[in-house]
Formats: sequence, structure tokens, C-alpha cells
Amino acid sequence: MITLCKTYLLYLGDAVLKSDCKTAFGLRDWCTDAVLAEWSHPNGTVSLGLPRLSPQEAHARGAGSLIVGVAPTGGQLPRHWLADLENALHAGLDVVSGMHTRLSSFPSLVAAAAFSGTRLIDVRHTGLQYPVATGARRTGRRVLTVGTDCALGKKYTALALTRALHARGITATFRATGQTGIMIAGTGIPMDAIVADFIAGAAEALSPANTHDHWDVIEGQGSLLHPAYAAVTLGLLHGSQPDAIILCHDPERLTIEEYPDHPIPPLNTVIDLYLANGRITNSNVRCTGISINSSSLSEPAWHAYRTQLEDQLQLPVCDPLRDTVTPLVDALMTAC
Amino acid sequence: MITLCKTYLLYLGDAVLKSDCKTAFGLRDWCTDAVLAEWSHPNGTVSLGLPRLSPQEAHARGAGSLIVGVAPTGGQLPRHWLADLENALHAGLDVVSGMHTRLSSFPSLVAAAAFSGTRLIDVRHTGLQYPVATGARRTGRRVLTVGTDCALGKKYTALALTRALHARGITATFRATGQTGIMIAGTGIPMDAIVADFIAGAAEALSPANTHDHWDVIEGQGSLLHPAYAAVTLGLLHGSQPDAIILCHDPERLTIEEYPDHPIPPLNTVIDLYLANGRITNSNVRCTGISINSSSLSEPAWHAYRTQLEDQLQLPVCDPLRDTVTPLVDALMTAC
Repeated sequence: MITLCKTYLLYLGDAVLKSDCKTAFGLRDWCTDAVLAEWSHPNGTVSLGLPRLSPQEAHARGAGSLIVGVAPTGGQLPRHWLADLENALHAGLDVVSGMHTRLSSFPSLVAAAAFSGTRLIDVRHTGLQYPVATGARRTGRRVLTVGTDCALGKKYTALALTRALHARGITATFRATGQTGIMIAGTGIPMDAIVADFIAGAAEALSPANTHDHWDVIEGQGSLLHPAYAAVTLGLLHGSQPDAIILCHDPERLTIEEYPDHPIPPLNTVIDLYLANGRITNSNVRCTGISINSSSLSEPAWHAYRTQLEDQLQLPVCDPLRDTVTPLVDALMTAC
Repeated sequence: MITLCKTYLLYLGDAVLKSDCKTAFGLRDWCTDAVLAEWSHPNGTVSLGLPRLSPQEAHARGAGSLIVGVAPTGGQLPRHWLADLENALHAGLDVVSGMHTRLSSFPSLVAAAAFSGTRLIDVRHTGLQYPVATGARRTGRRVLTVGTDCALGKKYTALALTRALHARGITATFRATGQTGIMIAGTGIPMDAIVADFIAGAAEALSPANTHDHWDVIEGQGSLLHPAYAAVTLGLLHGSQPDAIILCHDPERLTIEEYPDHPIPPLNTVIDLYLANGRITNSNVRCTGISINSSSLSEPAWHAYRTQLEDQLQLPVCDPLRDTVTPLVDALMTAC
């Protein structure tokens, strides 16, 4: 499993658009305690509203890693950032990236890391190997966020659930399966980068046996409805052996994003598909709630939609960004 | 995609058990035209009943590859085979292996291949990359063999179906997804070695668009019921977009092999699970027949079992090893 050195110095490159810095904003909001400061290229104009520190200053105050918190269009690392990243390595910080371009493909970064004894961590590209899944049931409780599509709130919902469980005094761990989630948690497994035969095994390793009253809140990936990524979703579902799933959906999304010929079926059909597959490794798996990304709906439209969906599915429905996730936690505690 | 140079010289190592040479016997039986001869270590006692030729003799008669047709216990390549394999490389043959040990991990083999301009091909370990699946429908027809478990006849059924289609004058291609299948076909994609995000994309690449009356007969992998390998199965199912699936089963198998806590549900439940998932990329997918590995049943028991299953599922049932696959082909032609 990847383990990152906290605290973090967040690097924003030469970004001029906040939307390019989603990773940095997510880290600022979801692991506030682990974020020390921000830093950027002289041409950058975006700020997170955090103290601005150089790598040397950050290292002196205990930072362990510089996180590339900006995703330039195309996911490639611009060459004019290299001097900044070398600077961070020489200052004693690991450099962590979730970009497609591997940090280790730049000889100057490899040399700087070797010289200073720091690490280049490509969260997308781990060479880590995992065993084949055993299918054996593990102690502890698990909830997995699943979705009708990619990128509609599975990570956010899992983080909000974990916070709400902690607020109730319940021991719970957020289990990260994607790059931003791993940066937030400081550890995790990038599920989409695992070789096919070992996906479920990696998911088993991610949420090991625990005490009976401990909850793993596992960040979902992809969707069983997705024509390209469903295999990732299924391996994660099987290896997680969740007691409960929470279905995440965006009502504006009528078809799979970028796959206009793939309509999203009614949510009860989607739940049935997840449960039929989930029963392979946990015969008691159930859906305990629905998390909606309702950003496209006005307040009255959201209330009407929520009421209708609750009546139809007989499950609590909430939007973690508008409401509290209390109804989801209540239902989880009642059902499991 | 991997492409092997035919014809083949089949290497049996120092095997003394026929059961260790399943790959070689499969190749002899299923790609007879491509198999030139056999060869073994002086200590080996197994024979395929083929002419015995040295690598030099085989190369002189047009052989392109030496295939390691024997799987020693543990899947490791014994060091005392190395001289034989170096000899084959120096004779001008590619060396092809499906073992866990990589041929390229032996410096003497790498040197011999470099010197002679031949290839070391590890069918289990390809560095090949595939695009993300598009989900777009392709012309041509496709049938995928699926299973209640691993290793119960999916490859055999696909090969028998391909032969039967050819015998009717129908254009059809066997599409290999596992190591032995790839050796038989001379080409294919080892589906279990693909990185998670690209499994469905690799399956799309394996059975590209074709003429309207052409059938791809795709070798299934794993099982949607398998707690470790179902992700491979789902990615292959989605990317194949099959018009028809044929379910393969062994009635002696009550639980998943090596997973005694994972019972195999009734076959109609299994069919429903495959079709519910298969509809994501082909809304018209249907199950057109059942292929049974009935080796554990007496002739009367087999007839009783088949009749009962046909009545229950209203689908043709056959065992390709006992019977002809004619009922499966008839049903496929009627349904699609």
C-alpha cells in the first residue's frame, strides 16, 4: 500500500484556473490537519488561502511531502515545473503526483531524489503487487460507496460518512482507492492500476480484518454500469465484501458521461445489479441509502426529487453538500 | 496483441506425467496443422506420438517457435531446461512459455535470443497496452463462453463451436484470452494480465468489427461467481459485447474450486447474473445453450441430467467431449 509522509506542501504550478486545482482544494478541505501551506510557480495566480511557504521553509516546519495539487489539461507535467520540483526534493520533501506523466520519467527529478534521499511517488503508477483474493469473510464492518457513473460524489460521500461516524464516537476508517483519496488519507490503493487477476485481492488488502465494531468506509470507483471501468468496480465490490452499499447518483446524468449511447437505468435496477454481484462475497449485503449530487437542481426541485425517490426506493436520500448525512448514518446503524 | 510464429516444435522438458503436458496435448489436438514435431530433455519419458525433431531439424523444416508445452508443479522453469531452450534460440526458433517464471529473467536466454535475433515470448506477461473501452457497438457477431467457475470447459467449448461453425461453412474466428488458447490460435490477449482500467478495452481490441455474417467465438475466462477473478470475467463480457453466451458448467462442482465457502447457485440464477451484466454493452445478449463437463457422470446419469436441465432451462444442453455441439450451433443460428 502507498503511504505518504505528512504534512503536505500543496503545489499549484502556474495555474490560473481554480478548476485545475481540484486536488489541492480537496486536500485543503478534507485533510486540513495534514496541510501545512501552499506554494506555486511565479506565474501562478490561484491561491488556496493558506500560508505561502517555500519548500525549505515548509521542510523546516515539518512538512514531509510536496503534493502536486494541480492537473494541467491533458494530465502531462509541464517541463517548466521541473525546477520547482527539484527544489522541493533538494529541500528534503517527497514529491507526490497523480498525473499520467511519471515523475520518474524525468532524469533530473530521479537524480535530485537520489541525491537528497527523498521519494518520487506516482500515485497512479505503483509497482505494488497484491495476492489473489481469498474470499474469506473478515471481522469488522464495511460500507462501500457505489455509483451510477464515475465522478459524481463517491469519494465525497465516503469522506462525509467517515466524519459523521467519528462525530458519533464510532471508530471508522476512510479507505482510499483513487489518487486524490490516497493523498487525503495518506495511504490507500489506486484500484484502477491493479492487474486484472488481483483487483479483488487488492481490495481485500485495503480493508483488513478489524474489531467487530469498526467501520471501514470504502471509496468506490467507476460503476457497474460503465462500459469501460466496470471491472474495477466489480473487483472492488467483491474484495470489499461490504455489509452495506450507498448508491451515489447525479440526476442530471441521464447517460454515462462520454458514453451517450449508455443510458443510466432506474435506480432500483442499479441497486439490484450491485446487490446481485455483491452477494458473491457477502450474502447479506444491502443498500442502506442514496447520496445525490443535486448541484443541478433548485432547492424546490431538490426537495421534490428527494421525496419522490425516498417514496419509490424506501431508502433515505440526501445530498452531502446540501444536507447532513445523518439519515445515511442512522440507516447504516439500524441495518447493520 | 501477441502473435506467435508457426509451425511449432512442442517441448516436453523432463516430464514423466502426461498430466503435466496438458498444454502440449491441447496444441496437438486443437492446432494439428501448426504442430510440426515434439522434443524433450533426455530424462523426459512423455511422448505426444509425434515425430521427434531437434530444434535444428525443426527449424530446417520451417518451424518458427519452440513452445514449452509442459507445466512443472509450481509453474517455475527448472534451470536444467535452460540449455535446451538456448539451443532452440540458437537454432533460430522463438521460445514461447506460459509459465509464471519469465523467460526474460534468465540472462543466458536473453543473450541467446539477442545473438540469434529470436524472441522470448512470455504469454502470461505481455507489456502490451490497450485503450479504454469505447462501448461502441461493432459489426459482426459474437458468442462468448462463460462459466460457473474456472477450468471447466470454456476454451474447449469455444474451440468445438468454432470447428462446428467452420464445418457449416460459416466464417468464424476463435478468439483466445488465455495462455493455451493463445498458443493454439497463434494470437490473442491474456486477459488476466491486463491492468484494471483497460480490461474491457482489451476485449474490444480482441474482437474488432467484422463482416455482418462473421462470428467471433470468444474464449471465456474465470466466472462472475468467482470471489477473486470475476473482474476479469466482467471486463471480458463488457468488451466482447456478445450477442450470445453459452454457459459452461461441471455438475460435480458444487462450490467454486478452492473456495469451499462459495456455493454455485442454480444455473438459471447464474444466467440471469451474466445477462444483467452483459446488457450494459449489448441490450440483446441472450443465453443460447449450456455446455456441460460431464466427466463425473455415467452415461445414464448424464442422459438424465441433460434431460432435466433442458426441461428446466428450455435451452439445448450438451457435452462437447461426449456429443456433437450441433444443438448449440443450431440454437445460436436460430437465436442470432
